[in-house]
Amino acid sequence: MTDVSTEIQPSASYSLTIRTETSNRPGTLGLVTTAIGDAGGDIGALDIAGVARGRVERIITVDARDEAHADAIVRRLRTLDGVRVLEVSDRTFSVHQGGKIEVTNRVAVKTRDDLSMVYTPGVGRVCMAIHDEPDRQWDLTVKRRMVAVVSDGSAVLGLGNIGAAASQPVMEGKCMLFKTFGGVDAFPLCLATQDADEIVETVQRIAPVFGGINLEDIAAPKCFEIEERLRQTLDIPVMHDDQHGTALVALAALENALKLVGKRIDAVKIVISGVGAAGVATAHILQRAGARRLVLCDRAGALYAGRAAGMTPLKEQLARETNPEGERGGVGEVLRGADVFIGLSGPGTITAREVAAMAPDPIVFALANPTPEVQPEELVGIARVVATGRSDYPNQINNSLGFPGLFRGALDVEATAINEEMKLAAAAAIAELVAPDELNEEYIVPSMFDPRVAEAVARATREAAWASGVARKERPRTDD
Amino acid sequence: MTDVSTEIQPSASYSLTIRTETSNRPGTLGLVTTAIGDAGGDIGALDIAGVARGRVERIITVDARDEAHADAIVRRLRTLDGVRVLEVSDRTFSVHQGGKIEVTNRVAVKTRDDLSMVYTPGVGRVCMAIHDEPDRQWDLTVKRRMVAVVSDGSAVLGLGNIGAAASQPVMEGKCMLFKTFGGVDAFPLCLATQDADEIVETVQRIAPVFGGINLEDIAAPKCFEIEERLRQTLDIPVMHDDQHGTALVALAALENALKLVGKRIDAVKIVISGVGAAGVATAHILQRAGARRLVLCDRAGALYAGRAAGMTPLKEQLARETNPEGERGGVGEVLRGADVFIGLSGPGTITAREVAAMAPDPIVFALANPTPEVQPEELVGIARVVATGRSDYPNQINNSLGFPGLFRGALDVEATAINEEMKLAAAAAIAELVAPDELNEEYIVPSMFDPRVAEAVARATREAAWASGVARKERPRTDD
Repeated sequence: MTDVSTEIQPSASYSLTIRTETSNRPGTLGLVTTAIGDAGGDIGALDIAGVARGRVERIITVDARDEAHADAIVRRLRTLDGVRVLEVSDRTFSVHQGGKIEVTNRVAVKTRDDLSMVYTPGVGRVCMAIHDEPDRQWDLTVKRRMVAVVSDGSAVLGLGNIGAAASQPVMEGKCMLFKTFGGVDAFPLCLATQDADEIVETVQRIAPVFGGINLEDIAAPKCFEIEERLRQTLDIPVMHDDQHGTALVALAALENALKLVGKRIDAVKIVISGVGAAGVATAHILQRAGARRLVLCDRAGALYAGRAAGMTPLKEQLARETNPEGERGGVGEVLRGADVFIGLSGPGTITAREVAAMAPDPIVFALANPTPEVQPEELVGIARVVATGRSDYPNQINNSLGFPGLFRGALDVEATAINEEMKLAAAAAIAELVAPDELNEEYIVPSMFDPRVAEAVARATREAAWASGVARKERPRTDD
Repeated sequence: MTDVSTEIQPSASYSLTIRTETSNRPGTLGLVTTAIGDAGGDIGALDIAGVARGRVERIITVDARDEAHADAIVRRLRTLDGVRVLEVSDRTFSVHQGGKIEVTNRVAVKTRDDLSMVYTPGVGRVCMAIHDEPDRQWDLTVKRRMVAVVSDGSAVLGLGNIGAAASQPVMEGKCMLFKTFGGVDAFPLCLATQDADEIVETVQRIAPVFGGINLEDIAAPKCFEIEERLRQTLDIPVMHDDQHGTALVALAALENALKLVGKRIDAVKIVISGVGAAGVATAHILQRAGARRLVLCDRAGALYAGRAAGMTPLKEQLARETNPEGERGGVGEVLRGADVFIGLSGPGTITAREVAAMAPDPIVFALANPTPEVQPEELVGIARVVATGRSDYPNQINNSLGFPGLFRGALDVEATAINEEMKLAAAAAIAELVAPDELNEEYIVPSMFDPRVAEAVARATREAAWASGVARKERPRTDD
C-alpha cells in the first residue's frame, strides 16, 4: 500500500483564492507564505490588491490537496497575528458560476437591415432554399459545426449515476474541450430519462440541428445498444466517447509502445481488465488493428467460452471472440507471460509482483481514474512502459487526443457516420505525431495541448471518410 | 387594390454584393450607378477594393425588391461597356453561411490547471455539489442563462409547414434576438416530429439543461395543448411566443392607442380576425386586461354561441367566452360600430370602407405579415391609429419587444413559470416607455431597438414574479 498523503499532490482542481489584509510591516508577508507552506499548500500567484493606511490587501492563489486540506490552510492563516482573512473562494466553483459556455451571435444585429437579413423577412428565402434542397442545411445553418453532447448522467466520471442535472458541469466541460481542441461547437443535452428506448427516441428527435452526436457518460451495457440503434437510424455520426475515444487513444499509445519494445500487435498477448464501455470498445479496436491474443477480465476473472458464473449475453459473445486458448483464472493469473496489460477497471486490480511475472518488457496501461489499477511508482524497474489516464504522470492516455479532431474531420466532410476506418486512421495519426527519434518510454503519445493533434486527427479522419464512402462532401480538387 | 410594385420597396432582405471591374476613365462609375438606379436598385455602400493597370475593382451593395429584380439589376450592369461583373453574392445567404450562432467558452482552457478546474478532476466536486443540493444547478451551470427555442417547423413565419430542417434558420435568428435584445443565451432545437405527444415528451426530456422553453412556430391548435401540458409538468417557464409574445405587445400598443382616443378597455368593442395561436392568446390577454366586448372572427365570420358551421371544441369555448351580444356575420359586418380591429389573419380581410363604418377614432392593428389585413395607405383620414407588424410603417407591433425582456426577467429570478401577471406587467412596461408627451398616432410603441425596452420589461417581469410567488430566487435586500 502506498501512503495516500504522498500520492495526492496539491493541484489546481482544489485551488483557493484567499484575500488577506496584513499590516505592511516587513516580514508579515513571510509569515503568511510560511504558514501556507507549512500547511502543505502550494502558492500559485500572489498579487497586491491595494495598500491603504499601513495595511496591504493581497490576493493569494493556493493549491491544496482536497477540501479538508484547503480548510486547514485557511484555519492556519486565521491564527496569525496581524493577518486578517477577508474572503476565501474556491477557484473551481468560481469558474463554474453561471456556467462555462455561452451562445453568441456570429453576425451582429445592430440595425433593421441586419435584422431583415438574419431574421424576417430575409430568412424566409433561406428557409425555402433548404426546404427545396435539404442538403443546403449543411451550409446555411450551424449543423456543419455543431455536435450534441448527450448524457443521461448514469455513469458520470467515477461518480456513478448522479443524474442529468448533476452531470451538466461535465457536459459543459466536454463542450469546452470540443471548442478548445477541435474548433467544434458543441451543446450539452442532459436528459431527464435513463431509459434506453427514451434516450434513443429523444436523440432521434433533436438530431436535425446537429452534424454529430457525442454520447457521454452513459452506463454499460445500455450504452452499446443506444449507440448502435442511433447509428443505424441517423444519417450523422453518433459516437459514445467513453467507448471509442478511450479505445482509439489506447490503440495509438499501444502502437507506439510496441514499436519501443519491438513487438507486433498480432503476436502479443494482451490482457484487458474491465468489460465496461471502454474495455469492450478497446478490445474491439485492438482486434481490428490486428490483435489476436486478447484476454478480457471482469471481477470474476478471465472471460472464456463456457464460463458459467456472472455471464451476460454480451460477455458470452466477448468470451467467444477473445481468449483463443481458453485461459481461466483471475487477472493476475492470466497476466502471467502476457506482453500488455490494459486496465479500464478500478484501483488495486493488479500488483507489481504480477507485472513482474509478465513477458519481458511489460507494457502497462493503468487507466482507471483518478486512482490507477497499480501505482506507477511501484512499477519502476519492473514495467518497460507505463501509461495512465492522469496528467501528473508521463504518457497520459486521454480522450481529448481523439474526439475533437475526429468530429472536426467528420463534420468537415459532412460524414454520415464515424466508422471503424475513421477511428483506426485517427489512432494512427495520433501515434505518428511522436517522431521515431522522440519516441521513448515516457513519451508514447503527444500532449493533449500539442496544437498539431486535432488537425492531424481531422485530416486522417477526412481521408478515411472519403476512402470508405461516408463523406457527403466530396474531396476538394485542390486537396492532395 | 394597390399596385404591388409601389408597395414593395427595395430592402436589405434582398440585398446583393456586386463586385465590378471598370476602367478608371472618369464617368465610368456614373454609368454603373445610373444603371443600378434606372433598374430600380438602391445603392447602400460603394467601396474600392483595388486599383491596378487602369482598372478599378469596386464592391457595391445594392438593395433590390425581390430575386427577379436582383437578377434584372445584374443583367443591366452586364450590358454596360467597360464594366465587368466579377461576382454577385446574395447578402442574406452570405450571413447564413455556416449558421448564425456559435457556442463559445466563457473561460479559457489554456493550461492543464485550467482543465483541472473546468473538467476532471475539479468538475467532480461541482457535480456532487449539485447532486447534494439540486438548486445549485442554477448557479453552477448555464441553466440560469439558457433558453431552448423549440420548433417542429409546422407553422414557420408565413411559409407554413416546412419541417424541422428548413425552420432552423428562423430558430437560429430567434436565438440571436434573445441574445441581442435580452442578453439571454438561447439554443435552437428543431424537432424531427410533429406529433404533440412526442413534442411534449421530447421537451420534458431535454429540459434539465434549460432555465426556460420558448416554443416557436408550432401550428394551432396543437400548440395550445403542447404549451399547456409542458406548463403543467415542467418547473421552468414554457411560453409559445407566437401566442403570448404577439398578444402582450398588441396589448401594450392597444393600451397606448386607447389613451390617445380617450377610451377605456372595458368599454370598447374589439373585433379580432384570426383564431390561430396569436388570435386566441390576444383574446385571452385582452380579457385579463379588462376587455368585455370582444368578438372573434374566423373565415366563416364571427364566433357566437350556438354557431354550427366550422366549429371545434376550442372555437366553441371561445364563442361562449366572448361575443356577449351574440353578434353574427362576416368580419366586416361585426366591425360596424366597433372601436378596435386587431387582425391576426391574412391579407385583404377588411376594406377601408368597413373601417369607415367603425365607431369614431377607429384603431386598426393589421398585423398579418408581410401583407397586412388592409393597407395602411388606404386608411389615411379614416382610421385614427394604424399599426402593423412591418418595420416600414409606423407602430410596428413586434414580438421582439416582449420575449427577450420577459425571459430575461424570468431567468433573473429563476422563475418556475411565466404567468399571466408577468405578461400583463411586461405589456404595461412596454406601454409606459412611451411618455405621455411623446404619445401620438404614429408612436404608440417603442422601437425594438430602443435599448430601454428589454430592461424595463425584465424589471416588470421580476416584480410580477416575486409578487405572484413564482420566483425561486428571493428579492435581493438591496433591491427596492
